[in-house]
Amino acid sequence: MQLLKDKIRNEGTVIDGKILKVDSFLNHQMDIQFFNEMGKEFKKRFQDTEINKIITIEASGIGIACIVAQYFDVPVVFAKKHGGTNMSTNVYESKVYSFTKDHYYTIKIAKDYIKEEDKILIIDDFLANGNALKGLIDICNQAGAKVQGAGIVIEKGFQNGRKVIEKLGIRVESLAIIEGFEDGKVILNE
Amino acid sequence: MQLLKDKIRNEGTVIDGKILKVDSFLNHQMDIQFFNEMGKEFKKRFQDTEINKIITIEASGIGIACIVAQYFDVPVVFAKKHGGTNMSTNVYESKVYSFTKDHYYTIKIAKDYIKEEDKILIIDDFLANGNALKGLIDICNQAGAKVQGAGIVIEKGFQNGRKVIEKLGIRVESLAIIEGFEDGKVILNE
Repeated sequence: MQLLKDKIRNEGTVIDGKILKVDSFLNHQMDIQFFNEMGKEFKKRFQDTEINKIITIEASGIGIACIVAQYFDVPVVFAKKHGGTNMSTNVYESKVYSFTKDHYYTIKIAKDYIKEEDKILIIDDFLANGNALKGLIDICNQAGAKVQGAGIVIEKGFQNGRKVIEKLGIRVESLAIIEGFEDGKVILNE
Repeated sequence: MQLLKDKIRNEGTVIDGKILKVDSFLNHQMDIQFFNEMGKEFKKRFQDTEINKIITIEASGIGIACIVAQYFDVPVVFAKKHGGTNMSTNVYESKVYSFTKDHYYTIKIAKDYIKEEDKILIIDDFLANGNALKGLIDICNQAGAKVQGAGIVIEKGFQNGRKVIEKLGIRVESLAIIEGFEDGKVILNE
């Protein structure tokens, strides 16, 4: 998606030569007009796919998923990482390994909000090793729901997330793919 | 807002006679069509108020804020409770006391995304004691930004949040106010 590539180049910053920060428009400050353009793009890519629910994970996936959902006219359910005291105990859960923090955390979705008949699009901001995505797919599988695809904003093409997810039989659509970094700049797949 | 009151009555559940759960449409599963109706309502209530940014707090405020932002044509910034490794250290922060969990947590917004010239609408799902809202207002004050108002989905009218926030000179608009509970049912302000 050209607009996203332009935004990454113009507004993204690279930290320590290897971390892309896009918090000016994607995951801290959120450019809602731009999110709408992403919604149109995901709809275009999944236009022939039956989808009745979008699933994402807190926190930075939520805003994107909500705007994208408008183009599919479906509700969003977000998996909780930090279940509050009011969280139902009747949940599906999955353990996710975080490479950046080197620990496991548990994601949860209440059983009421994911059903066998659901046809699900998973939306998330980043795909790196695919661990969070694998956890979401695991939860969908526990519910017997069908995962129709994963819509990712930025994929780290130099990590193995796509391979892991496609091996599970899930279609992955990324709006931009980072190939790597060079001289403090991000290299995007053309 | 009548539609919200109807949804609370029809889809909300009361736990232990004193906790309202609205996770079927508000803060776990999210009814995006309904979020759009809330967006229109907030826009109506703040139509004469200059607003160039919406601020909220992760996680359940994010989806609401993003949809509402479309009616104001402004970006959203969400305060982080769980700053990841990529979080800038150049942040405003504020300590927030959580009654339900009986501990303090720190919320953060990068200084790049909140400026002196900003005219801010704060959006959140619940107002109870007003502690989270007070933290967000504190961060806005540190930045010298002007808080134009707080738009709340559900206010617990039997707690003192509104008093606390109005005492700071901030206008509070709630789409529904819970007066209390009776026989396992929620009593809404008419």
